[in-house]
Order: sequence, then structure tokens, then C-alpha cells
Amino acid sequence: MELKTLNELAERILKLKNVTILTHSRPDGDTIGSGYGLCYFLRSIGIKANVKNSDGFSAKFSYIYENYRDEDFEEECVVSVDVADAKLLGEPLSGYSDRIDLCIDHHHSNRQFARDAYVDGDCCATCLIIYRALKLAGGKITPLIADCLYTGIATDTGCFMYESTSPETHRAAAELIELGARAAVINRLMFQIKSKGRLFAEQRAVGSMEFAAGGKISLICITKDIIDECGIDSADLDGLAGIPLSVEGTEIGITLKQQPDGGFKVSVRTVTADASAICAKFGGGGHIRAAGCSLKGSREEVARAVIAAAEKEL
Amino acid sequence: MELKTLNELAERILKLKNVTILTHSRPDGDTIGSGYGLCYFLRSIGIKANVKNSDGFSAKFSYIYENYRDEDFEEECVVSVDVADAKLLGEPLSGYSDRIDLCIDHHHSNRQFARDAYVDGDCCATCLIIYRALKLAGGKITPLIADCLYTGIATDTGCFMYESTSPETHRAAAELIELGARAAVINRLMFQIKSKGRLFAEQRAVGSMEFAAGGKISLICITKDIIDECGIDSADLDGLAGIPLSVEGTEIGITLKQQPDGGFKVSVRTVTADASAICAKFGGGGHIRAAGCSLKGSREEVARAVIAAAEKEL
Repeated sequence: MELKTLNELAERILKLKNVTILTHSRPDGDTIGSGYGLCYFLRSIGIKANVKNSDGFSAKFSYIYENYRDEDFEEECVVSVDVADAKLLGEPLSGYSDRIDLCIDHHHSNRQFARDAYVDGDCCATCLIIYRALKLAGGKITPLIADCLYTGIATDTGCFMYESTSPETHRAAAELIELGARAAVINRLMFQIKSKGRLFAEQRAVGSMEFAAGGKISLICITKDIIDECGIDSADLDGLAGIPLSVEGTEIGITLKQQPDGGFKVSVRTVTADASAICAKFGGGGHIRAAGCSLKGSREEVARAVIAAAEKEL
Repeated sequence: MELKTLNELAERILKLKNVTILTHSRPDGDTIGSGYGLCYFLRSIGIKANVKNSDGFSAKFSYIYENYRDEDFEEECVVSVDVADAKLLGEPLSGYSDRIDLCIDHHHSNRQFARDAYVDGDCCATCLIIYRALKLAGGKITPLIADCLYTGIATDTGCFMYESTSPETHRAAAELIELGARAAVINRLMFQIKSKGRLFAEQRAVGSMEFAAGGKISLICITKDIIDECGIDSADLDGLAGIPLSVEGTEIGITLKQQPDGGFKVSVRTVTADASAICAKFGGGGHIRAAGCSLKGSREEVARAVIAAAEKEL
């Protein structure tokens, strides 16, 4: 059943019992903040709840989970947060795919896999949906819950930088800081600190930058050598695809990431051009401003093919 | 006279006539946003006003001033915005130093050089002070004025990232977006786009990074060669001093910038250590988390001396 109002969602949350909360694989701040924020709230009003993930959570989020312990109970309800498609739960949690009672999500592309669902594709973060619902549900939003919810809102909006940031986003941030969210500490962890490996991978990638179409197209390449020499894994590479588009004058930014089999994953980001049209030429897809595809070939062949496709979309 | 309340400031603003508004040299988003925001507001209520600066304004702020033209009038009042010290007006405006009627500022270190002053050192941005006052003054905040005021608030808080961001900061941002501020467009210009020269200077600087004290101290050096080869000027180097402190595990970040005479300007940024104590050893100073000094010597000598001083403050 589609829950149409936040009041319906709040009521549905209050009826939960012995809850397993599922977060998506390769977890980001929004799924982690949503999962633990909801879990701590449920526990605070006497409802047993645990949080699960297929991959575990990065140490940079430890302020969210450092005092968390799984509770012992017989599971009665399953809730997914920030999960657009049951496939995104990952293999270890795939057994839950067809028995999710409640889905809370903010992806337009949500595949409606749960019994009940509240999906608001216009909301900047699942954490903001949960914050709205918890306010209606009553009960106390502790400083730790505020930390969780602030985290998802801040990370999914690039610290209030992206177009998805609305007046309501800012008002929720204001309230969460008043409720005790340690915004400055969280922002430093989320947006300022980088691992040495990541920093040097960026440096190498920028060093490899190529330009085409008089600077309107910028391309970087992360080779297997860079990944190996910088000692990083794919989680360390999140956000790298934004680098080419940060160059003044660039309208299409292309990022090639060499895969273990030697092929390349390609990410395309644009200011106004149609990124998904570029990637569709190679069997990929995505959104108008952010899309991806995979290509075989040498670095030079792949770069040439994607640049040629991009030039046609300028 | 010290204006103690925002109401007093609003009343003082409404009494202005034929106003020259002074902004500080090497202008940033807060002084530009404050100057033009106040100017456009005054003009909208029938008070003639112009904005002046010693250095001119960077093209990245052109959305603020592209339709601005100086008005012709006989100056009766002089207002400074975001200027902590009359010296910061720069040489071309130094003739105004002893005849400023009203100073509006948010620096604790404000030197009280004006006849009347409203200074709130706890406020994140002068633009936020002006926004509060204009609301009390009545009159309409147009989308262009909202663009100006949003710009100063966003830039002085690092897009709502720094500790200075309060609940009121977020609420003002919410209101300014509702009043028509083009937040996403402004954020891309202020925080995402970099010149090629800047990007390659960063890349070279990261490539030169040194570590000491088991990684607790990180140091980068911008040599004259980098500045010349990347074709950048000192304005392009703003914010580079944040790079060493972005490395995971770093507690003290040091940035050396080689000067035309071969000496080095040193910027020290810290997570908790006393940056001003480190710089005081070399005749410099500043704040506890951000300070600077100048040293003569080779790159190696300067790096060694500053690292040794930093190690004592760990």
C-alpha cells in the first residue's frame, strides 16, 4: 500500500514491532543516518530494532554506531530505508527482498518492492522524510538521533550545495542543530578529511586530465596502476567523477575507471548536456546530468570513443 | 556611537542619504554581497548609493554586479561593510579612513574606526547582519538582493560547513532562497568551479606534500615555479592552506608560498593545536586555528624550522 501522507507514515512507524531495518549496500550517509536514526528512535519509545547492511559501515561513520549493539528479539517487521530497488540490499540481505513490510525512500526510480511504501522523490534525503515523520510520531529526538538525521541530509545535498537543497532542507538542519546535532564535527568528517590514498589518486587523476572541444570536454582516467599504487578501494573513489566538471569552462566531464578485467567504467557528468544520451550509445544509461556505461579497449580507444560521443551532445 | 540593537541599525540605515559603500580590498563574497545587497536595497527605497572597492571584483561575482551602474550624486554618507580595520580598505580608498559614518561588520577584531558601528563578532557573516537589519527596515528584498546576501552567508560559512553556521544561518538561507536567491547556481560558481591553473597548482602542491610526526603534521609548498607555470595569481591561491589539514590524521597543516623575493609566506591551520603560538615564534600571529608568518631561507630550511616549531605544539 502506498502511504500518501507523512501522518500515515508516522502512524505506520508507531505500529512497528521487533524491527529489522535494512540499509543499501555500499552504504552512504543517508542510508546509515536513516537506519540508525530510525532504530534509536524506535528503541527510545520501547520498540526493539536492529540495523543491517551487506557490507558493513565505514569507520568515518563510527560516531553514529560506536555505542550500538544488536538487540536480541524475534523479528516481526522489516523496514528498508533509502533503498530504491531490492537488488541494492546486496547478496547477504537478498533473502529479505520479498518480505519487506515498509519502504521509506526518496528515489524517483523506487521500484515499489515493499508491502507498504512512502516514497518522496522530490525530497533531498531519506533522512529528511524520517525527520518529518518522527516529529509527527511524537517522542524525543535525542542528540544522537539528530546526528544521524543531519548526516543524511548534509551528505545527500553535498553540504547544502546541490539543487536538491530546499528552504525546508535548511530549516530541518536548523532544527537538528538545535536538537544537538554536532554539525561542524560531522561536516569535517564527511566533507573535509580525505585518506592519503584518495588525495594522491586525485592528484594522479588531475595530472592525467585531457581536454577536447576547446575545453568544453574534460576527461580523467583512474588506471589500475593508480588504484594499486595509492592503496585504495572503490569506496575511496566516490565523488571523483565530479572533478572534470569542476574545471572552469567544462560542460561535459568524463571519468574513466579501469576495472580488474582491464575494461573501463565510464562516468559522465554534464552542466546542461544529456549525459544519458552519451552513455546510451555504449549500452549504458542514467540521468540527464549524471550517467554511466562500460567499455572494453585501451585507455586511448575508450577515451576517443566517449569524447566523440560527447562532442555530438554539446 | 555603538549601535546596540538591530533596530538601531535599521533606523540608521533608513536615515542614510547619497551613500558611498566601501568594501574591503581583495574582496570576498561577504564584502561584495554586503556592499551590493545594501546598495540595491537603498536604491529600491529611493536612497542614492554606490559601491566602491580598491581592487575591483572577480568575474565569478558578475551575477551580482553585471547590471550595476554608478549613480551620479554628491556623496553625503559613507558606510563600510565587512571591513575590520580601515587599513583593509586598500590604498585607493584610504582617503575615506577617517570619515566613515557607519561600519557594519562581523569581525571580533573590528578596530572601531567609524562614527557609528554595528559589530556582531558572533555572527557568521556581515551579509546575515544586513539581512536581519533590512527585514526590520521594511521594504522589499528582491531576488537580486537575496542573491547578494546568500552569497556572503554561503561563502563565509564554507557552504554551511564551518562551526560558525548556526540554526539562524540555515533559517536565513531558507528565507533567502524563498525570496529568489539562486542558491544552486551561486554554489556551483563559488564552490565547485576552479580555473585550470588553480587545479594544476593544487595537483603540484599535493605532489610535493611532506609528512612529519608520524603523519600528524602535513606540509605543502607552492613555489614560484608552480605559480609561473600554472599561470595563476595570488587570488587563485585562496583556500589552498586548507589542503594539508584535509589529510586523514593530520593535526597541523602547513602551507608555504614562495614570494617574488624568494622568501616564504607560511600559513598554519590546526584541528586543536595553537597555530598562533607556532607562528609567533617567527614574528607572525593570528587565531588559534589559523595563523601565518613569513620566513627567509631555502624551502628545506623554512620547512624544517616550521615543522620543528609545530612538533612542540602537538
